[in-house]
Amino acid sequence: MTPNPERFLADLHQLRSFGAAGVGKGVIRPAYSDADIAARAWLADRMREIGLTVHQDPVGNLFGLAQQPSLLLGSHSDSQPEGGWLDGALGVIAALEVARASREAGGPPVSVVSFEDEEGRFGVTTGSAVWSGQIDLDTADALTDHAGVTFAQSRARMADLAGDFVDPAQFTGYIEMHIEQGPSLDVAGEQVGVVSDIVGIRDMRLTFEGQQNHAGTTPMHLRRDAFQAVTTFNAAINEKFRNVVTPRTVWTIGHVALHPNASSIVPGRATFSMQWRDGDADRLARMETIIRTTAQEVADAGGLKLSFGPMLGLEPVPMDATLRAALEASADTVSPGRWRVLPSGALHDATNVARLMPVAMLFVPSIGGISHAFDEDTAETDLVAGLNVLAGAVTRLNQARA
Amino acid sequence: MTPNPERFLADLHQLRSFGAAGVGKGVIRPAYSDADIAARAWLADRMREIGLTVHQDPVGNLFGLAQQPSLLLGSHSDSQPEGGWLDGALGVIAALEVARASREAGGPPVSVVSFEDEEGRFGVTTGSAVWSGQIDLDTADALTDHAGVTFAQSRARMADLAGDFVDPAQFTGYIEMHIEQGPSLDVAGEQVGVVSDIVGIRDMRLTFEGQQNHAGTTPMHLRRDAFQAVTTFNAAINEKFRNVVTPRTVWTIGHVALHPNASSIVPGRATFSMQWRDGDADRLARMETIIRTTAQEVADAGGLKLSFGPMLGLEPVPMDATLRAALEASADTVSPGRWRVLPSGALHDATNVARLMPVAMLFVPSIGGISHAFDEDTAETDLVAGLNVLAGAVTRLNQARA
Repeated sequence: MTPNPERFLADLHQLRSFGAAGVGKGVIRPAYSDADIAARAWLADRMREIGLTVHQDPVGNLFGLAQQPSLLLGSHSDSQPEGGWLDGALGVIAALEVARASREAGGPPVSVVSFEDEEGRFGVTTGSAVWSGQIDLDTADALTDHAGVTFAQSRARMADLAGDFVDPAQFTGYIEMHIEQGPSLDVAGEQVGVVSDIVGIRDMRLTFEGQQNHAGTTPMHLRRDAFQAVTTFNAAINEKFRNVVTPRTVWTIGHVALHPNASSIVPGRATFSMQWRDGDADRLARMETIIRTTAQEVADAGGLKLSFGPMLGLEPVPMDATLRAALEASADTVSPGRWRVLPSGALHDATNVARLMPVAMLFVPSIGGISHAFDEDTAETDLVAGLNVLAGAVTRLNQARA
Repeated sequence: MTPNPERFLADLHQLRSFGAAGVGKGVIRPAYSDADIAARAWLADRMREIGLTVHQDPVGNLFGLAQQPSLLLGSHSDSQPEGGWLDGALGVIAALEVARASREAGGPPVSVVSFEDEEGRFGVTTGSAVWSGQIDLDTADALTDHAGVTFAQSRARMADLAGDFVDPAQFTGYIEMHIEQGPSLDVAGEQVGVVSDIVGIRDMRLTFEGQQNHAGTTPMHLRRDAFQAVTTFNAAINEKFRNVVTPRTVWTIGHVALHPNASSIVPGRATFSMQWRDGDADRLARMETIIRTTAQEVADAGGLKLSFGPMLGLEPVPMDATLRAALEASADTVSPGRWRVLPSGALHDATNVARLMPVAMLFVPSIGGISHAFDEDTAETDLVAGLNVLAGAVTRLNQARA
């Protein structure tokens, strides 16, 4: 098959007219907004034009179904409240173009999907989470957005178009193309990334409780300063992690709350977030041990109390070896010397879909690593390279199957 | 003269009935509250009983004036919103007892004062600040409390009792007895502290601005994490200060605000307070240089922007040598081997009064270093020791003058 770059880019620019922010190429197209619903109607028309059977499920996931069995390609077309034009839209339009080019070439069958609410107006990757059974529909229906609107109320806006959930058994696998949303490919001057795995996440809150004191009358040696405990903990784990992590491991203290948080008072309490991500569940566990023991050592040494909040855990999702090999072979043809294997540090719909079928992902660069912002962008030559890698992988998988 | 411990303690317990919190000995008697106004009416009666001329000035500072010239003793009788029974009340009641005992002994003349709003419902040490000219009355009148009530509205509640400001030329000096509000005397098992100086304070906000990024997709080596910059800065100044500070120097990061302060986002901006206190203005300046250069080094090394907010500066106030020597000699008589010279890490009305006349202070222990809380307390034997040190110093100063 031969994907058409002009047609692909024209569709991509057309899609960003739905919810155009009027600032650069930015879009405002959150799940179930008027712009999102209009964009899905336009996508459904494009699917019908190329002979796919349009099917929207009860939560708004939009499928363009080819004859069974087929590969499923896609991503999501909803955006952050202030989002970029590519994010999930790229994967949906690339899927559309590959399905169209494949149809024109007489096969193989390719189905297309745009999942709903990947950006988490409600929950996280809500549409694919419900389809995959990661959360049940009743639980999802009770979720609310920041304004107090429920998921049930929102999906009711599209109920007139809704059929049943799609049977996943008709799909042989799922490939999602996406922007990297990080700086690695851009910094290296590369065009394509083939994802090795979607990293697992651990996230928890820790609280040091010391002694709130007057910042003028309390000598340094008598203080039990909760913020100083956080900084001591931070330095210690940064040091201890050196023997455990890889260059791909990340960890972040992104949230800090001091009490009473006043310049004249020695902080009596500090609650902070500790999040870490890695593709290897064993490494995540070793880091957890370091975090817990180090925090306890800091608390014991300083005479503070320590408590841990509940730990959020999402397991790493390795990409399917067959799908990934097809992407790698295709990348080596399309962009020789300008692609790499890398993990996805972000969650994607593929995380949920992996519960149902083999999945794989490919990335194109994010200029400056910027995403979830109006100035998110990727060079059009790199977008087309990604499209060609995706099409080449579909062809290879079909040949291997034949 | 011979102060009467029972009378002194009875008055002290009587005063805490005004605004009694009903929790231990705690009081709720903020400036210009009903309880504060009632307590001042009761104090005025006690002053009249012992032959002092009662005079309230336009901001509510309550004086009991002896014949001129006289020493002025006192402190403040307003409390924090949730305060202890001693704090400033101790210095006022001790002054009352010394004035009474002195009157009974036929001299010397001792005047008494209870300053208003030392606790800073409006501004900081507001009553003595206005009297001393530290701030002018028009400026003070525009100050508001947390509920938006102005100082002008509040002092109008006591306008029916108000005369002019008192001429400070009638006073030969001011001595303020206070609880330490820190743990030093309590930890050492000592009864009395003679204050060497009220420390100077420097307080400013610093802001590191790095790059807000996705906590999953941004590799560690490409991050410009504003919170990590704060922790690096903190460790560096703790190390550099070791060659500059004394055991009495204190410094505190009490306020930290991260942006956007979310566990999944690398902090792009961190604003934090840096406060430091010492009795030596040169040392305060050397610490400022370390803070500014270290913050710049951290910003430069990490590729972050750095900005400094305006610096609040209050100069150290050394205690008057003559008044202090009288307190030391008296302490050595009353509590031999159980007193020490120490700086005041907290601000007091004496800071302002030093603009008008020689000042000195003495401390009694705070059990557990606790203050500005319902469970603030001091052993009654220590309260009486402080009373006797104050009375002895007044006697010595009179003998030296005679």
